[in-house]
Amino acid sequence: MDVSGLVERAVTYAVSHGMVMTAPESYRVENDREGWEKTKMSGSTVVHTPFSLFPSPVNKEIYQYASDLTPVLNRLVHEISRDHQFLIDTLSEVVQVDKFTGRLMEIFKSAVVGNGNRQVSPLEFGICRFDYFVTEDHTPLLRQVELNTIAASFGTMSTRATSLHKFTTKLANRNVELPQNQLLSELATAIAFAHDEFVATRKGKEDRSVRVIMVVQHGERNIFDQEGISETLMENHGIDCVRMSLDQISELCTVLEEDGHALHVQSGGLGLGVEEFIGSVVYFRAGYSPNDYPEERCWKARELLELSSAAKCPSVAYQLVGTKKIQQVLDLDGVVERFLPSAEEADLVRRCFAKQWSMSGKSGVEATKLALANPHGYVLKPQREGGGNNLYEEEMAAALERMSATELNAYILMERIRPAMNESIL
Amino acid sequence: MDVSGLVERAVTYAVSHGMVMTAPESYRVENDREGWEKTKMSGSTVVHTPFSLFPSPVNKEIYQYASDLTPVLNRLVHEISRDHQFLIDTLSEVVQVDKFTGRLMEIFKSAVVGNGNRQVSPLEFGICRFDYFVTEDHTPLLRQVELNTIAASFGTMSTRATSLHKFTTKLANRNVELPQNQLLSELATAIAFAHDEFVATRKGKEDRSVRVIMVVQHGERNIFDQEGISETLMENHGIDCVRMSLDQISELCTVLEEDGHALHVQSGGLGLGVEEFIGSVVYFRAGYSPNDYPEERCWKARELLELSSAAKCPSVAYQLVGTKKIQQVLDLDGVVERFLPSAEEADLVRRCFAKQWSMSGKSGVEATKLALANPHGYVLKPQREGGGNNLYEEEMAAALERMSATELNAYILMERIRPAMNESIL
Repeated sequence: MDVSGLVERAVTYAVSHGMVMTAPESYRVENDREGWEKTKMSGSTVVHTPFSLFPSPVNKEIYQYASDLTPVLNRLVHEISRDHQFLIDTLSEVVQVDKFTGRLMEIFKSAVVGNGNRQVSPLEFGICRFDYFVTEDHTPLLRQVELNTIAASFGTMSTRATSLHKFTTKLANRNVELPQNQLLSELATAIAFAHDEFVATRKGKEDRSVRVIMVVQHGERNIFDQEGISETLMENHGIDCVRMSLDQISELCTVLEEDGHALHVQSGGLGLGVEEFIGSVVYFRAGYSPNDYPEERCWKARELLELSSAAKCPSVAYQLVGTKKIQQVLDLDGVVERFLPSAEEADLVRRCFAKQWSMSGKSGVEATKLALANPHGYVLKPQREGGGNNLYEEEMAAALERMSATELNAYILMERIRPAMNESIL
Repeated sequence: MDVSGLVERAVTYAVSHGMVMTAPESYRVENDREGWEKTKMSGSTVVHTPFSLFPSPVNKEIYQYASDLTPVLNRLVHEISRDHQFLIDTLSEVVQVDKFTGRLMEIFKSAVVGNGNRQVSPLEFGICRFDYFVTEDHTPLLRQVELNTIAASFGTMSTRATSLHKFTTKLANRNVELPQNQLLSELATAIAFAHDEFVATRKGKEDRSVRVIMVVQHGERNIFDQEGISETLMENHGIDCVRMSLDQISELCTVLEEDGHALHVQSGGLGLGVEEFIGSVVYFRAGYSPNDYPEERCWKARELLELSSAAKCPSVAYQLVGTKKIQQVLDLDGVVERFLPSAEEADLVRRCFAKQWSMSGKSGVEATKLALANPHGYVLKPQREGGGNNLYEEEMAAALERMSATELNAYILMERIRPAMNESIL
């Protein structure tokens, strides 16, 4: 069937309803026309985000499982983040190999362990995204691909994609039962809740301006996904959210111990019409990759934020829970159960885990054997977040034979997931 | 005050919420990357529409006057469009000079006068936009600039601009009373109403697909304003709206007299997944300028639509009411009163008219004298829609001295309006 007309309308709808990203550099034009440079900088030349013309069907059993699973996984992440010794012990080998995780651990120790084993502020929360594959044979129903505990993106786009799919299915006269998707407003509500909690701790102080800080990368292309949350924060809650990069934070922020470790921001140069404000919530949409810390002062900024009384989304502890090593350890006997005493909940969680192996010691030897015997069945993943660096097939085999035991410590081996296939129009 | 930060957020908001236009050709990049050509064609490289950072204040008296005035003006336009002889008589000189108005009059005569002085279908309606200036001295409160009776644009953008201004005023902590703006959904409701009326006339027929047709220009940059209405038609009313250019219509449409003059569309090649449909409403977003009729078949298409049983938004009669000549005649004694018997309503309307003069006969001689004596106080406007062709100051004076009496018939002279000034950030 020729659906070019539908595709055209879907693209127009997507662009018209904020399913957009800043155009990549190669799409842009330099132009002398007055004002163009400015327009360009504000990210107003955009392309639509990739999308499928129609939603992919998911059966009700799977949908129900994912719905039941998510709050339990959120609690699991939270409980682990509170077990400081577990984090330190589990990551003790990784921090020696992976410098990035090592730096995070240093901040964690100075902020938490150095502070009598408790955070400066008890205000922390996660906006996590758990990625799954629907498996080929529906056994189990879902396999977890990864746990994103920091800077999880596409919340705004998820809500907008549902609107788009409502539109396209109606347009094509397809009878589809689309679940509600209020994610965007719920994300804003979560941040607003933390903001209000912070404001409550400032009782008696006369703060003139209190704002949320979104920590962002320079030249972020996904700005519309991020700003969707800021806009909703303003529209639904009247709370302002200020974008700042880690180097701006290093320049403009100070933590005043005598003011209860409040995060003071000199914002005169930001064009916001306000000279100074206090940061209520620090919402990270950057800081998850070594590229986000090109200079030492970025690390200093990260530490400063962690040492402040602002609510963190997430704390460094949360971020550490997202390492591959923690995911691998969770697969070991008794670990999930340590954090989720309910056998029912532990079972719910365990069912979605793919089999994983540490690459150190005895486990590493066993894993290497398994993987070399059947390179097709496994994937070698670096501990760190970010994706794109996984090794498959011959490349994996070559790496396993080449790397030293210490080098291998920075990786985990994972059973390869066979996802179910679905015909889509992209 | 430095508001660069606010401006940046406002631009992001605008782009994210559909206040966009297709980027002009000069902003686009040719690129080999697969799929780019297609993306380009679907208008997904966009720039934000121009906007003011904050809304311009209008006092309540003016707002109330505009609110009272609009329905009366709509009725006036409608009443004039129904007085066929008045249209023919009033435009008799213009059609000799202005070829475009002449062609419209031919269609009007063949469709209406040739049909026993009544339209093939009684279904017609207007989506008009009345443009005013707030006057410098508020006497009168408003001066009408023009009456747009066809293809009035920016209904979608108007609703979106109100959302934007709600956002920016909240962001800047400005206490502003913004009126509700439901224009977008109201436009869709108007078209849906006409669609339903049309469907009611087809009782007993087994039409498999009935759709609204939006008549559009090739390479329209304002597609997001137009598609906002189509999307709302689908989302709120489940009615599909198909974009067609006049040359597509000339190729794909036929009017079947034996089927009650129904407009049949062969849509197999449009990629809509439907082979054929019947046009319920013809909504013109093109056809207002000679450029929209580059070939004779475009005129044939326009005539075909007028001769069909589809509801027209607007009919040719409505379009003729929008000529400058009609506006000028309305300024003469007794003309408004002929169509609006209520003295109160006639007065309401008259107050917003700028003084106008026909350029033919005695009136033309008087007008020329007035204008040459004070070129600063008048503007010479061509009869036709479109703007941008008005003559001011010395240019006007030169034209008045150069043109023949016949040439001048294509123009009217209008008192120049002194608008109130307002500081804005654009």
